[in-house]
Amino acid sequence: MRHLRIALAQINSVVGDLEGNLRRILEQMAQAAGAGADLICFPELALTGYPPEDLLLKPGFVADNLRALDELVHCSAEYPGVTIVVGFVDRQVDIYNAAAVIHHGRLAGVYYKQYLPNYGVFDENRYFQAGTLSPIFEIGGVQVGVNICEDIWYPTGPATLQAYAGAEVLVNINASPYFAGKGDFREKMLATRAADNGLIVAYVNLVGGQDELIFDGASVIFDQSGALIARGKHCAEDLVVADLDIEAVFRTRLHDPRRRQERLAFTDGQTPHILVTDAANTRPDQNGRQHPARPTLQQPDYTLSTPARVEKPQGRLAEIYAALVLGTRDYTHKNGFKQAVIGISGGIDSALTTVIAVDALGPENVIGVSMPSRYSSAGSKSDAQMLADRLGIRFLTIPIDSMFSAALEALAPAFAGTEPGLAEENIQARLRGTTWMALSNKFGWLVLTAGNKSEMATGYATLYGDMAGGFAVLKDVFKTLVYDLARYRNALAPGGVIPQAIIDKEPSAELRADQRDSDSLPPYPVLDPLLRAYVEDDRTYEEMLAMGFDGSIVQRVMALVDKSEYKRRQAPPGIKITQRAFGRDRRLPLTSAYRGQPSPWSGTRAAPEKASGARS
Amino acid sequence: MRHLRIALAQINSVVGDLEGNLRRILEQMAQAAGAGADLICFPELALTGYPPEDLLLKPGFVADNLRALDELVHCSAEYPGVTIVVGFVDRQVDIYNAAAVIHHGRLAGVYYKQYLPNYGVFDENRYFQAGTLSPIFEIGGVQVGVNICEDIWYPTGPATLQAYAGAEVLVNINASPYFAGKGDFREKMLATRAADNGLIVAYVNLVGGQDELIFDGASVIFDQSGALIARGKHCAEDLVVADLDIEAVFRTRLHDPRRRQERLAFTDGQTPHILVTDAANTRPDQNGRQHPARPTLQQPDYTLSTPARVEKPQGRLAEIYAALVLGTRDYTHKNGFKQAVIGISGGIDSALTTVIAVDALGPENVIGVSMPSRYSSAGSKSDAQMLADRLGIRFLTIPIDSMFSAALEALAPAFAGTEPGLAEENIQARLRGTTWMALSNKFGWLVLTAGNKSEMATGYATLYGDMAGGFAVLKDVFKTLVYDLARYRNALAPGGVIPQAIIDKEPSAELRADQRDSDSLPPYPVLDPLLRAYVEDDRTYEEMLAMGFDGSIVQRVMALVDKSEYKRRQAPPGIKITQRAFGRDRRLPLTSAYRGQPSPWSGTRAAPEKASGARS
Repeated sequence: MRHLRIALAQINSVVGDLEGNLRRILEQMAQAAGAGADLICFPELALTGYPPEDLLLKPGFVADNLRALDELVHCSAEYPGVTIVVGFVDRQVDIYNAAAVIHHGRLAGVYYKQYLPNYGVFDENRYFQAGTLSPIFEIGGVQVGVNICEDIWYPTGPATLQAYAGAEVLVNINASPYFAGKGDFREKMLATRAADNGLIVAYVNLVGGQDELIFDGASVIFDQSGALIARGKHCAEDLVVADLDIEAVFRTRLHDPRRRQERLAFTDGQTPHILVTDAANTRPDQNGRQHPARPTLQQPDYTLSTPARVEKPQGRLAEIYAALVLGTRDYTHKNGFKQAVIGISGGIDSALTTVIAVDALGPENVIGVSMPSRYSSAGSKSDAQMLADRLGIRFLTIPIDSMFSAALEALAPAFAGTEPGLAEENIQARLRGTTWMALSNKFGWLVLTAGNKSEMATGYATLYGDMAGGFAVLKDVFKTLVYDLARYRNALAPGGVIPQAIIDKEPSAELRADQRDSDSLPPYPVLDPLLRAYVEDDRTYEEMLAMGFDGSIVQRVMALVDKSEYKRRQAPPGIKITQRAFGRDRRLPLTSAYRGQPSPWSGTRAAPEKASGARS
Repeated sequence: MRHLRIALAQINSVVGDLEGNLRRILEQMAQAAGAGADLICFPELALTGYPPEDLLLKPGFVADNLRALDELVHCSAEYPGVTIVVGFVDRQVDIYNAAAVIHHGRLAGVYYKQYLPNYGVFDENRYFQAGTLSPIFEIGGVQVGVNICEDIWYPTGPATLQAYAGAEVLVNINASPYFAGKGDFREKMLATRAADNGLIVAYVNLVGGQDELIFDGASVIFDQSGALIARGKHCAEDLVVADLDIEAVFRTRLHDPRRRQERLAFTDGQTPHILVTDAANTRPDQNGRQHPARPTLQQPDYTLSTPARVEKPQGRLAEIYAALVLGTRDYTHKNGFKQAVIGISGGIDSALTTVIAVDALGPENVIGVSMPSRYSSAGSKSDAQMLADRLGIRFLTIPIDSMFSAALEALAPAFAGTEPGLAEENIQARLRGTTWMALSNKFGWLVLTAGNKSEMATGYATLYGDMAGGFAVLKDVFKTLVYDLARYRNALAPGGVIPQAIIDKEPSAELRADQRDSDSLPPYPVLDPLLRAYVEDDRTYEEMLAMGFDGSIVQRVMALVDKSEYKRRQAPPGIKITQRAFGRDRRLPLTSAYRGQPSPWSGTRAAPEKASGARS
């Protein structure tokens, strides 16, 4: 029986850490070799981390990445039985998003990504030239097609070309940014691709947080019938090992006359066949001798292992929560921070942010700071304290009222004759921002901000105030989902971690007496679906009316979203968990007169306005 | 003699302002018709403004732009003698960066941009499908090739294809972002393209500021020998009218046997010939009657006007200064602001920023605010006052010392046992930021920040402090250029506007006693060329050593630039005047372990670090 033992190494590469990534790769190689793997596959751009962005424009960076590849090729000689597929940046006249196939101290071949995504968070046309060849690598007598990420999403792309040209296994290496629900979507596509082409698809994905992006691992293998035979962990490093039954692929194809005919009809000048190795040839026997060359269709000394591990998919909330924890941990640690500070207001957003930080960094590395003012309720202060106590984190109280009084006094001549309003509210938020930034500067703590997507969308946040900080954990989490995640997390611990009072109280910024979010915004159960329609789905005013939303609310929310673009431009990065997050995913001009409501042709529209509106 | 009277309308479109842009276009059409023009050309995406960015992903926006085009086609019926070329977004299955050719109430034809720039500040592959056809439009008996911006930069692109297919005039419509020196470069290319193809090149460019970008106008026409025959204004709206001598193009081609042969040899299935109109056909005579159709090679009733206007190029400093003024004015007004506030410290950066703001908005619309602390020198305070007096602007003084004392007192328990340092310095800067944001919130003033490119590059600025504001006028201006521009501007006014003491004093942030920039940074005449090499030219450490820079300085500066990426990510937008500005032009990851110095393979490197360093 012909088999191939494959290992998918979903590693957590760090962008730019060429030495560290090489070390991570070598560690996994040693482990895969120990597990008897014939082939070990690493993610897209595993050597450089993904996405390297404009580091790719630095010739020195590309050269160093090639040096790292050389080193890897050199080191591979220590593992004569293992072929490696690994993502790197290749340089010919231009640069390519490439996969190297390495065996026993030799760079056997290279594949260049053909479909370069340039939408959403992706800018690959900015950097890479597209490849044109779809080679087949013969590895241990097995025909293996290698391609990269986006390539496999196209039914007429290299995957199918390689299948027609004889591939029995497709290795698809990925750096696929997470959003909630993407996993299902992805697996359906991969199963279809495997079944349609009658071959095994092995999909390996990066793991880790990189600025806004989460790579969630969950590497998978589908057999030639489209059945799932292995799945790695979600949001954690993992090594997925599986024995691939190549005979079964062969039999499937032999008995499918349509497929036979298709293959016979297929002529392909674009498909070089590259002999990497017969795995059996070079695996040393018990006495350390190399086996002689044998026909590639026979590998009788190969025993099938037990079935590969199939990690169970988590529920939606668990999956999102894990992504938020991973994103927070990786942004903190990969940027050289150990500890984080969070302004704990007694509200739900800062409470959930604190719990996520504790899960990511440990309670000993999280500092909560309460900054009460004349408008803070007693409940808020005691709830904040109770949360900190339950989590066992360090808790500071720094009242801002004397600063606030000094600020009002200093501004009194300039403000003479005006009514207190937004300006006075924002001063408090900015004094808080100044305070936690001072703690950050003094003690080297990363500031985590607590604003959610509903606030970021409507501009219901103070720039340089509650928005001040290094990383915005909940930036892509709508308020209604904040509540769901809080309840999910509370259900995991007996008695819960977030005090019930925090979940039950009505949301308020507490920047003036008796302030409520609902003074400025529609109720969140109305607001959030509307924001999804407008921000994530680009619905027009008319379409949102047709969806049943109230016209005046739609107009108000569209205006809030449009005019707070300037705040978002200066917001810290946060973790993308939806199909369209604020940040690199959504690139709107600051200067824009387009309102799109009710219709630009029904009379004159007001000039764009920026300075007013909900908390600026 | 065959002639074509052409008008190039370099208008200041506002992104998203479909109605306003349509109005601007119609105004220029009336003017061009009055001047007897046969053909009027508007910039690339003149209808939508450039770049519309992700507005293009909104189906409603694209639909509204098509409605605006319909309206323009409809209105064109009022100008029967004038053909229009105008940029818009066309939608077939995908969307295209398109040029419409409109005549007398009819959309005669459309050209789709073929070369979509996706580097630097450009993301056109994110939005557009590339065109494949290079049509020729016969306008008033003249063969006119239309193409868009990037298309003409390629010697083998549509420009040459259209020339081979018979074009006598090339109309190239543009939205070409400014940087200092680009004009010369661009004109050399256009002259070459005209002479090489033996035809007239008419280049029309957008004018105005859009977020980071300046479009500088300076539309030009080159004749078939590559001689400049018209040039519009730099950084101002303009209508360039010129009579094109088509006979001369015909004669040149007739007498160039190489060109004859090339054309004979040329077969082109890709070049549709579209008859728009014979201009002479539809121009009414003195009695209002339409002329009958005539052979297109004869237009004897056509008198050559005096030679077209050729605006003189300004000097480098004048050109840059004008771009900064335009950028500041347009960002302010296009975002609905009338007035701007600037923190005037008594230093050169805020002084130059204030003068630019006054030139852009008028002295009555600029408010200076001095926020002295215990570390502000008497000279700084009086210099700030003198500057405000000379400019005749409103000047507020709001001391921050009582706020600073209150902040130190509130933080005293948390800071117990630590030495004063960076944290205390930054508190002052952030209290100033809080103060001018309060003025902004209260009075609706736009906050202009004063940081220069040397500071932005090295992170020598306080996030949420001096970096707090809506627009960063000098963000792309190195410190040494700040001085040059200050001297340039002073030379324009008798006695100067910026007090000489401000120019002469040693740069200091005045956040602690006797602080000097030179405590933290190399001298600016050393720093700025080094930053240019590293930030703009992506030089490696080794290359910078070879350029003669000191190794330890290079290492220090590279580290400063790398580790302040997180500050720049939250910085306000500023005006791009170099080939690589911070912002959309330079997209580096926040999380990056790449150091590139001295060499990543010469031993272990330190973990990435963010929290420390010059003012954070």
